[in-house]
Amino acid sequence: MADAGERHRVVIVGGGFGGLYAAQSLKKAPVRVTLIDKRNFHLFQPLLYQVATGSLSPGEVASPLRSVLWTHRNAQVLLAEAYDLDVERRRVIVNDGEIEYDTLIVATGSQNHYFGHDHWEEHAPGLKTIEDATRIRQKILFAFEAAEREADAEARRAWLTFVVVGAGPTGVELAGALGEIANDTLRHEFRSIRPEDARILLLDGSPRLLPPYPEELSHRAEQQLIRLGVRARANVRVTAIDGDGVTLTGPSGEERIAARTVVWAAGVTATPLGKAIAARTGAQLDRGGRVVVGPDLTVVGHPEILVIGDLASATQDGKPLHGVAPVAMQQGRYAARLIERRLRGMPTEPFRYLDKGSLAVIGRAAAVAFFFGGKVKISGYLAWMVWLLVHLMYIVEFENRVLVFIRWGFQYLTFNRGARLITGYRDLPRGAHPEEAETLARD
Amino acid sequence: MADAGERHRVVIVGGGFGGLYAAQSLKKAPVRVTLIDKRNFHLFQPLLYQVATGSLSPGEVASPLRSVLWTHRNAQVLLAEAYDLDVERRRVIVNDGEIEYDTLIVATGSQNHYFGHDHWEEHAPGLKTIEDATRIRQKILFAFEAAEREADAEARRAWLTFVVVGAGPTGVELAGALGEIANDTLRHEFRSIRPEDARILLLDGSPRLLPPYPEELSHRAEQQLIRLGVRARANVRVTAIDGDGVTLTGPSGEERIAARTVVWAAGVTATPLGKAIAARTGAQLDRGGRVVVGPDLTVVGHPEILVIGDLASATQDGKPLHGVAPVAMQQGRYAARLIERRLRGMPTEPFRYLDKGSLAVIGRAAAVAFFFGGKVKISGYLAWMVWLLVHLMYIVEFENRVLVFIRWGFQYLTFNRGARLITGYRDLPRGAHPEEAETLARD
Repeated sequence: MADAGERHRVVIVGGGFGGLYAAQSLKKAPVRVTLIDKRNFHLFQPLLYQVATGSLSPGEVASPLRSVLWTHRNAQVLLAEAYDLDVERRRVIVNDGEIEYDTLIVATGSQNHYFGHDHWEEHAPGLKTIEDATRIRQKILFAFEAAEREADAEARRAWLTFVVVGAGPTGVELAGALGEIANDTLRHEFRSIRPEDARILLLDGSPRLLPPYPEELSHRAEQQLIRLGVRARANVRVTAIDGDGVTLTGPSGEERIAARTVVWAAGVTATPLGKAIAARTGAQLDRGGRVVVGPDLTVVGHPEILVIGDLASATQDGKPLHGVAPVAMQQGRYAARLIERRLRGMPTEPFRYLDKGSLAVIGRAAAVAFFFGGKVKISGYLAWMVWLLVHLMYIVEFENRVLVFIRWGFQYLTFNRGARLITGYRDLPRGAHPEEAETLARD
Repeated sequence: MADAGERHRVVIVGGGFGGLYAAQSLKKAPVRVTLIDKRNFHLFQPLLYQVATGSLSPGEVASPLRSVLWTHRNAQVLLAEAYDLDVERRRVIVNDGEIEYDTLIVATGSQNHYFGHDHWEEHAPGLKTIEDATRIRQKILFAFEAAEREADAEARRAWLTFVVVGAGPTGVELAGALGEIANDTLRHEFRSIRPEDARILLLDGSPRLLPPYPEELSHRAEQQLIRLGVRARANVRVTAIDGDGVTLTGPSGEERIAARTVVWAAGVTATPLGKAIAARTGAQLDRGGRVVVGPDLTVVGHPEILVIGDLASATQDGKPLHGVAPVAMQQGRYAARLIERRLRGMPTEPFRYLDKGSLAVIGRAAAVAFFFGGKVKISGYLAWMVWLLVHLMYIVEFENRVLVFIRWGFQYLTFNRGARLITGYRDLPRGAHPEEAETLARD
């Protein structure tokens, strides 16, 4: 490319759905694209809970950004972490240097949020990264192993109690998968315990689970969870989490639940780059730390800076857009189109999200979904089939699509989960009680 | 099982090829089997190098011991680490208690060995565990990423230099895979470097690579490696390894090679339980720390203790048996048969290893093999096809067999490696040079 030096430089920070779709949509544009990510892969977040629950391997839900983009001759991928901007000189500050842009697309997404209780993270991991997922998988599987070796009934009960905090789609998916692990996957594998005796609690502060869904579907989801042995408890607020369990307050006062495994699915907040954007451009942040953007997803006063995906606070018809994958994908494509039209001197239009519907899966033949703003609601087998097809369709690489399809086929036929590894530690220490080993296992 | 309490108790320590095959072969025996392992899965070691080089995911070469053995109603699996024996009271001492046995099968295998230079481990990981494999994968992939961002030519050269120490089958497999990564997989994915410029060195102290193989095959293997850009250097001894490279002495004196990625494939030693057995029973250990066993694989004076697999030092026709998977498998089956025959009061025969041949793979359509003690030697495409079939055949679970087959099919067609994730760290530190980030990435 002789003109490479003069081409319009688009820098994209973040290779999630927003950033990757933007980069892909710029394939034929007369620009130079630099995609920066601190990881070397795109993560298919919607299936990450299946890694945490042993159904899929990390490699099956992650695609190396380089191999996804290698046919894009105008794109370069860099492994780096962006910390700040220099809006005057149009540079992104990364861990080991600066990168110049003409147009910047920021798509760093969201991260786990503990509402001021960051120390809960140690005992209740959230589900955002591959490492989060393998850590949760380790905690869940180790709990059953420790219970099998535990002679004391009360201690065994705590190992067999699983608490999921937050009953949004991720919490529902995790709790449902836990129910299947206890009732189906591990059913015949232990000799001293009955895995199906496991107690699985799904807690939420709202009056019902899946708050953004129509009320009818919340009830259907709860019924499907009950069939898997999951008890959903609404209107409860978690006030403490430690290595022994959780404390909560609810309609019936304060309560302590002894549980060795707690998973956090109660909230996310914007990644810190949002603050840097606000500080450098004067943009507003919303309550969740997301950058308020205009109708064309640009930052006020800086048409050359776009914020998309979970990091963006955008509204449509007076309502905020949710931080879900389809929004990020459409915003990524829109950002690419906006840049192309600008370069051609064509007029641009505001971003409009086309809501194709919402889906949440609970387990085998159990899911809920609604379309056209809630005019069409489905649940059970049909919703599950739609969920399967939609997710298979959107997996980024064809190879992963085939592998996931086969994993699901085997799981459907055998009830087994093929990726149930406890990884991340070397030795069980001599003289260690299971709980100590578990602590070591976390490092 | 009403008679469970009175049944003969067989305790197996270690769920590798030896221990797992023993447990499986005891399925119908009138015994109670307890399989102890510090990991919850059986690892298919022969394909571990493919995890280290991004071809397969950890979950595809590991099978949960519980799911492999759940149909064995006489078998219990325990997650525990064995440290010692009490031979008088017939108990295995594990991290959190003791386990009684009537017959004990010890099959804990081998571990990496640095010949008194344990601090080399930090810079030159060996390939024994899943964590070793993902760490090596991380180092290899990160090296190319760092090279892409490195402006200094000399530093870039060090990032693009890969040293494999030890030219046995594992070293040859790793070096060959590195050659394919540089020349095929990453070929079109970088913009500042040419991955095919990577320098890959395979070092060994012997006069030729694959020392146990017929000389003709060593030469064939070397030719096939040269085609992949790997330079094999014989008769060299490594005298130092640190974060910047390796120092070696050879026919032409001392030499320093600047290399950011060094992998250790030069030696293994017996796991520490061997020492405990020697101390408690008076058994001899060989130079590699392996327990010398009799013709029936029992420890002298203790017919109730069998040692099998890599931990056993057994001879046949005056020659030592190698620490390879087929020996461990056959010894596992033999141990089970021995126990059954004893319980029935039948005479027992000494163990005899049936050598079906040896195979080492180098890369696509590149392998060497010999059968019938070297009377039949093959190499190239044919040897590679045999290698593929044999390995597919022995993978423990049918699901993994299908997944590996598909991974290989895609790799064959596209030259891609689908599991190229850099995992194990969270943040690239601000202001960090690539090398610092790499150090952090190791934790």
